[in-house]
Amino acid sequence: MKRPDEIKDTMEVCKAGFESRTRFRDQLPSVVDRIVESCHDEKCFEHIDAELIPSQESVIGILKRLREILFPGYFDQESIDRMNLTYQLGRSVDLLFEMLSEQIAHSMRHECLRYDQPCVECVQLSYEGTLKFLESIPKMRLVLATDVRAAYEGDPAAQSYDEIVFSYPGIFAIMVYRIAHQLFTQQIPLLPRIMSEYAHSVTGIDIHPGARIGESFFIDHGTGVVIGETTVIGKNVRLYQGVTLGALSLPKDAGERLRATRRHPTIEDDVIIYAGATILGAGCVIGARSVIGGNVWMTESVPPDTKVLLEAHRLIYK
Amino acid sequence: MKRPDEIKDTMEVCKAGFESRTRFRDQLPSVVDRIVESCHDEKCFEHIDAELIPSQESVIGILKRLREILFPGYFDQESIDRMNLTYQLGRSVDLLFEMLSEQIAHSMRHECLRYDQPCVECVQLSYEGTLKFLESIPKMRLVLATDVRAAYEGDPAAQSYDEIVFSYPGIFAIMVYRIAHQLFTQQIPLLPRIMSEYAHSVTGIDIHPGARIGESFFIDHGTGVVIGETTVIGKNVRLYQGVTLGALSLPKDAGERLRATRRHPTIEDDVIIYAGATILGAGCVIGARSVIGGNVWMTESVPPDTKVLLEAHRLIYK
Amino acid sequence: MKRPDEIKDTMEVCKAGFESRTRFRDQLPSVVDRIVESCHDEKCFEHIDAELIPSQESVIGILKRLREILFPGYFDQESIDRMNLTYQLGRSVDLLFEMLSEQIAHSMRHECLRYDQPCVECVQLSYEGTLKFLESIPKMRLVLATDVRAAYEGDPAAQSYDEIVFSYPGIFAIMVYRIAHQLFTQQIPLLPRIMSEYAHSVTGIDIHPGARIGESFFIDHGTGVVIGETTVIGKNVRLYQGVTLGALSLPKDAGERLRATRRHPTIEDDVIIYAGATILGAGCVIGARSVIGGNVWMTESVPPDTKVLLEAHRLIYK
Repeated sequence: MKRPDEIKDTMEVCKAGFESRTRFRDQLPSVVDRIVESCHDEKCFEHIDAELIPSQESVIGILKRLREILFPGYFDQESIDRMNLTYQLGRSVDLLFEMLSEQIAHSMRHECLRYDQPCVECVQLSYEGTLKFLESIPKMRLVLATDVRAAYEGDPAAQSYDEIVFSYPGIFAIMVYRIAHQLFTQQIPLLPRIMSEYAHSVTGIDIHPGARIGESFFIDHGTGVVIGETTVIGKNVRLYQGVTLGALSLPKDAGERLRATRRHPTIEDDVIIYAGATILGAGCVIGARSVIGGNVWMTESVPPDTKVLLEAHRLIYK
Repeated sequence: MKRPDEIKDTMEVCKAGFESRTRFRDQLPSVVDRIVESCHDEKCFEHIDAELIPSQESVIGILKRLREILFPGYFDQESIDRMNLTYQLGRSVDLLFEMLSEQIAHSMRHECLRYDQPCVECVQLSYEGTLKFLESIPKMRLVLATDVRAAYEGDPAAQSYDEIVFSYPGIFAIMVYRIAHQLFTQQIPLLPRIMSEYAHSVTGIDIHPGARIGESFFIDHGTGVVIGETTVIGKNVRLYQGVTLGALSLPKDAGERLRATRRHPTIEDDVIIYAGATILGAGCVIGARSVIGGNVWMTESVPPDTKVLLEAHRLIYK
Repeated sequence: MKRPDEIKDTMEVCKAGFESRTRFRDQLPSVVDRIVESCHDEKCFEHIDAELIPSQESVIGILKRLREILFPGYFDQESIDRMNLTYQLGRSVDLLFEMLSEQIAHSMRHECLRYDQPCVECVQLSYEGTLKFLESIPKMRLVLATDVRAAYEGDPAAQSYDEIVFSYPGIFAIMVYRIAHQLFTQQIPLLPRIMSEYAHSVTGIDIHPGARIGESFFIDHGTGVVIGETTVIGKNVRLYQGVTLGALSLPKDAGERLRATRRHPTIEDDVIIYAGATILGAGCVIGARSVIGGNVWMTESVPPDTKVLLEAHRLIYK
């Protein structure tokens, strides 16, 4: 039990704390004023009087729903059987129609406002775009199935196809890329990039939605992989962690000058690129069936069926 | 205030929007039919009529609970003192018993179904496995304490042991690895891999649950670290970001042929491996007390007490 | 419908399952006892009878709130216009005052207890520290605006400033760094490091809150970037994925000996450092306007206006 003088001490500490809170809190209004004022600084960025854009929460919700549709039964909380499959998918597709068309409309209106264009057709265009996207699902499922098979064939540590679908970050990143790329080709603004950055955050794999990638694609481990906006990748290609398919060095003002030009390499069918390899520039074409060794740094093309290895760098043993 | 013709415009836009929604939504049933049909394509993957497997949510819940048990007081929402410690731990262990045995049973049934085996003992085996796992906790706590100490000794930026437990991604990845490895050695399917891929997603550190790793293990920064399934690591080893302990290059059909064989290196006691180093192949043994320099690429063994450095590559100055 | 013998089988399986659950669950108390006992092992870490520290949940909440204040309108769930801006920001700042002062007080009390110091002023100091932090927001907003501009100028794939604020991991990591660094310079313990490790987890970019970084800073892609505690970076610097600004190799006991000494490089104004480059040591100064090529490994200074490239390593073509 506390002694009376201890109780008094505690009470005084409490009182002092309360008083200091009030004293400091009284200064908040003037702090808020300065913060509000700083929002109007022309040099700063704000998004006031603008259209809402897709929040990360809504994008995560859409991707979760799509994963349930693309890999039915794998990520559902309830068991799916032959009988309830139609109900389950029908319900999911209907919900997705609402979720996706809403975010597509937000993204479109945001861009219209940015260019001060009137935006009377955004609603209709968003429904049209959503339907077109939904119609692409059966084909997307087929392509993703080739990706899962490629993972099983390429990774001796894989125990089963199920394990790959459930847990491989490479498959998640590729699934999100294929979704984002479909929206990108439909010229939906903002949304594809927000999706791909979500996958980047979850997996460490950064695939720009603009890249074009063939079937049976596999990325093992994946952390640090970067695939640039104008990269073209053929069928049956396998990458490991830390591979960069990037642009050549850019001058300081590159952003404005090179926007929308081809800047990234071409990887033909059946190529394997080992961990940490860097392949740069639009002029660089890796011929079919080539193998690029780990840590190789390339800016020039190689013909088909080439093996490119780093010359064993001399090691110093002490 | 809006003029009457503006109001009329707004109403017409609303009406047009509503009509287009109905028009596009009417096409959903046929889209759903094609999606359902595509689920029955033999080339695709579905998980229909299958056992539910551990969801990421349940795995995150189990790991959170385990972290509270392994590092008592660090991650609890309420203060823990000597008196309520037993109640708190008792309650946690009891809840964990239910959570873990349920997910172990799911994982087992999933595998049984995959091989069309009858599964009458899954319930009993799941309780047995859970109890065995819980019994391993005191030993696991001791080993994790050596890991925390190794982090403090190895990182001059560390201010206190507490900071390491609270915030170091390396410690989180190692904790999840030690949990997943225990389940892996108990031959629980699926669950260990889902756990390790969760840690990979959070930390960028990819440790396969099958690897064998001694005490006082420290990974600094960690993003991009890959430790393969059959790696063996001794005591008191320190790794930095981007280190790969991997397999030698694999032919296209490697998956099937090399499953379950030894493919990864051996790292003996007291070795330090700096950032970006790559060590590959089952034949590669790094002798005790060796130091491997940053970015070194090795496929051959070195005797104990060796320093391996990259020969300073010539730099071009312009 | 099930036949009677099938029903009997099902019932027996259920009964067996229930009995085995009871049998295994009966062993829990002794397991708990051993776990509790292991908490008192002197070699282990516990956090019993200690102050609560900031949970990751509270840190995420604080950063989310701060992001809404630093980039108003971008991440809000409701539209912000000129009229409601003051209300919205006022409310946010008031809530933040409570959230942040509470966690600062926790962090301070935690450190006081660690050194067995009496802690009578923690409450007052936490309000004082929070107010000082809030007063730094207008300046922080200006600096972050230069970072967004640097991203747009440096990345040809960027479509708009909005896209950068919404989705670029580099901007998120830099924002969290600037927040954490402000708290670090105010000598708030623990909280800055927990913040920077959260950003590390989300983006793969690991910036220690102690680093000093000038305006117009851009990190592209970013996965694997490590910026050490005593690094100094000038204005208008651009980094790519996998760049390490680190310390030279450390002996086993380095932790204790080198704590609080300068260990990391200096990067002067207008420098570009390409992917995978590694720059190590307090003695290493990269002169203004220099360009460091991809994968370069440096431990020595270069004068201003230098280009450093890897000598094209010989590749072996087969």
